[in-house]
Amino acid sequence: MIPSIPIELSGERFRVTYRLAGDETTACQQAQDIRYEQTVEFPADLVPAGDINDHIVGALESFERVDYNHFQAVVSYAIETSGFDITQLLNVVFGNFSIKPGVRVEHLELPTALLAAFKGPRFGREGWRRRLGIPNRPLLSTALKPMGLPAREIGELAYRMALGGIDIIKDDHGLANQPFAPYKERVERSVEAVARANLRTGLHCVYVPNVTAAGDATLRNALFAKTAGAGGLLISPGLTGFGVLQQLAEDGRINLPIMSHPAFLGSFVTSPDNGISHQVLFGQIARLAGADASVYPNYGGRFSFSREECISIVSGTSVPMGHIKPIFPAPGGGMTISRVPEMLEVYGRDVIFLVGGGLHKQGPDLVENGRYFHRLVEAM
Amino acid sequence: MIPSIPIELSGERFRVTYRLAGDETTACQQAQDIRYEQTVEFPADLVPAGDINDHIVGALESFERVDYNHFQAVVSYAIETSGFDITQLLNVVFGNFSIKPGVRVEHLELPTALLAAFKGPRFGREGWRRRLGIPNRPLLSTALKPMGLPAREIGELAYRMALGGIDIIKDDHGLANQPFAPYKERVERSVEAVARANLRTGLHCVYVPNVTAAGDATLRNALFAKTAGAGGLLISPGLTGFGVLQQLAEDGRINLPIMSHPAFLGSFVTSPDNGISHQVLFGQIARLAGADASVYPNYGGRFSFSREECISIVSGTSVPMGHIKPIFPAPGGGMTISRVPEMLEVYGRDVIFLVGGGLHKQGPDLVENGRYFHRLVEAM
Repeated sequence: MIPSIPIELSGERFRVTYRLAGDETTACQQAQDIRYEQTVEFPADLVPAGDINDHIVGALESFERVDYNHFQAVVSYAIETSGFDITQLLNVVFGNFSIKPGVRVEHLELPTALLAAFKGPRFGREGWRRRLGIPNRPLLSTALKPMGLPAREIGELAYRMALGGIDIIKDDHGLANQPFAPYKERVERSVEAVARANLRTGLHCVYVPNVTAAGDATLRNALFAKTAGAGGLLISPGLTGFGVLQQLAEDGRINLPIMSHPAFLGSFVTSPDNGISHQVLFGQIARLAGADASVYPNYGGRFSFSREECISIVSGTSVPMGHIKPIFPAPGGGMTISRVPEMLEVYGRDVIFLVGGGLHKQGPDLVENGRYFHRLVEAM
Repeated sequence: MIPSIPIELSGERFRVTYRLAGDETTACQQAQDIRYEQTVEFPADLVPAGDINDHIVGALESFERVDYNHFQAVVSYAIETSGFDITQLLNVVFGNFSIKPGVRVEHLELPTALLAAFKGPRFGREGWRRRLGIPNRPLLSTALKPMGLPAREIGELAYRMALGGIDIIKDDHGLANQPFAPYKERVERSVEAVARANLRTGLHCVYVPNVTAAGDATLRNALFAKTAGAGGLLISPGLTGFGVLQQLAEDGRINLPIMSHPAFLGSFVTSPDNGISHQVLFGQIARLAGADASVYPNYGGRFSFSREECISIVSGTSVPMGHIKPIFPAPGGGMTISRVPEMLEVYGRDVIFLVGGGLHKQGPDLVENGRYFHRLVEAM
């Protein structure tokens, strides 16, 4: 019925580690099903013999018990199945199987021949450090909020934060193009305010606007931000798609560091037996798509990530991935300045400390709070 | 500290129903947290009095017990918080709270003043029926696969399917721009093959290529498909973002019906206490973004959606949403032709039956299988 036609393939394969919940029979069947569902999506008995069956259908490389009712399967795929496109790569990794309960993507192993199709982060840790002139210490970041402030007041907040010595002042990810603080006005005022503060401090604080929007509005926002003098971009790839993040990272007209935000990505990690591991989602995928920093909720804040999950994200931001540069983990989400010493112990120097509401909570003077935050990190 | 500045707001609000898991104290705290987290993302005691506190922070409209350890909270938001952009609307609905376990979005109620910012599906059920010249019966659809076939053989499959009387022949969502079947060649061959079959049958079968790709490649694929003579587009908004689906639906140069595919969206629905309800995700959101048909796995196939969940998707495709047209539910995912009578009972006439591998399983002659499928539906 379906003809068997030889296919020209490189022989290079990428490997996905899946964690499977259930008894051994169920997990073993899931591992077999993944091979077909993620590639040919065709009844196994009708797949034509030859190259499709031998090389396009995923190959089960290993299957091991992890604990009483969890197993780990490594499935490899021909790199050509990805079409060398991040959306299709993610589709092979987890497209249809995202719909099956009890399966979690644990790790990606991508060979050089596949990584060659991706530029990854334009700056990465070292590149962004060079731009900011901060060779060693953790970077200090905060967020402009609350939503509802007019652009003018947002600019004033940015001024006081920059005066306090914050390195990276990003929009809260909920600041979009609302009528009460239109995107363009907000960007212009915040860029101007930060530049004004930098003149007084002699520091190199940058403003990072949120460019997340529908369709090509994200790119237009990014180009506007570049022209206006922003020092980086914030994007929520859960809302725009990872391919749009990649587009911003690769566009030579933009040439700015990018922070990715976890908004709308949470459902991948809220259930331990489903979805995508923290390491892969906030580490490997964000990085492959071109983020220079990956924002995520730190343990012990308003969210429920564990210390181990946060450490696994750090590992995802730096695990060897060929020419794809290591990027900054940027833990936030209910952080307070008082936790900085403990976080330094966990994260070391290659981290962006993102203190949002906590910077306001520290005391009545925002400039002084920033200075305290700065001194604390410098002193460690 | 943060100034209290009057904000000009319409007074119009949209409502989100959240289902909260846990005891009453926990659920009640979650409902309160949602109000802040999804809007100002600021410590409640520091939110300035006045319009931000009164109108930008979400308002808890109701809180009710559903069962022993589940509660339902309706939170309303000023429509201006959405920036009238689908990515920011989804961000307010579930951006950060997607990261919190035990919360599921159950229903959206969007007022006319907000819906006015969205065109929704260009065709909807009736519009697509008119284009196809099929006023009453369910539409028959199948998928081109397996991945690995060269474009030429994919075209031949399309020819035989069209000859058999299938109405909508879509790419499998895993067909991208792989070297063994490049996108453009596949589209050209499949369009030509379907046109050739239509000449013989006198029918109006259409070919629907998968345009999903990274960044603006999706739009480029769609424009190519239009020029080549495709009769619709397939996109996976879980991979591209819903804003890119909207862009395709609104672009007047394209003007083609769009099918949305659930790939990479599964994690929103795999855990009953987390994520987004089937009705909202595959119904209301797909529709708001502009899909004319929403593909999802039917109950009793390879996936685990229940009959009730499938019926709730149908409800999401047709629940009143102002000028946003009702769209087709397109259940697939391991369907066989033998289940058509039962599905007709459940879905009625306004449905696209998507039989992929099952069309091949029916018997050795693909043309004859299509004719059998067609006759079965015509006879009901």
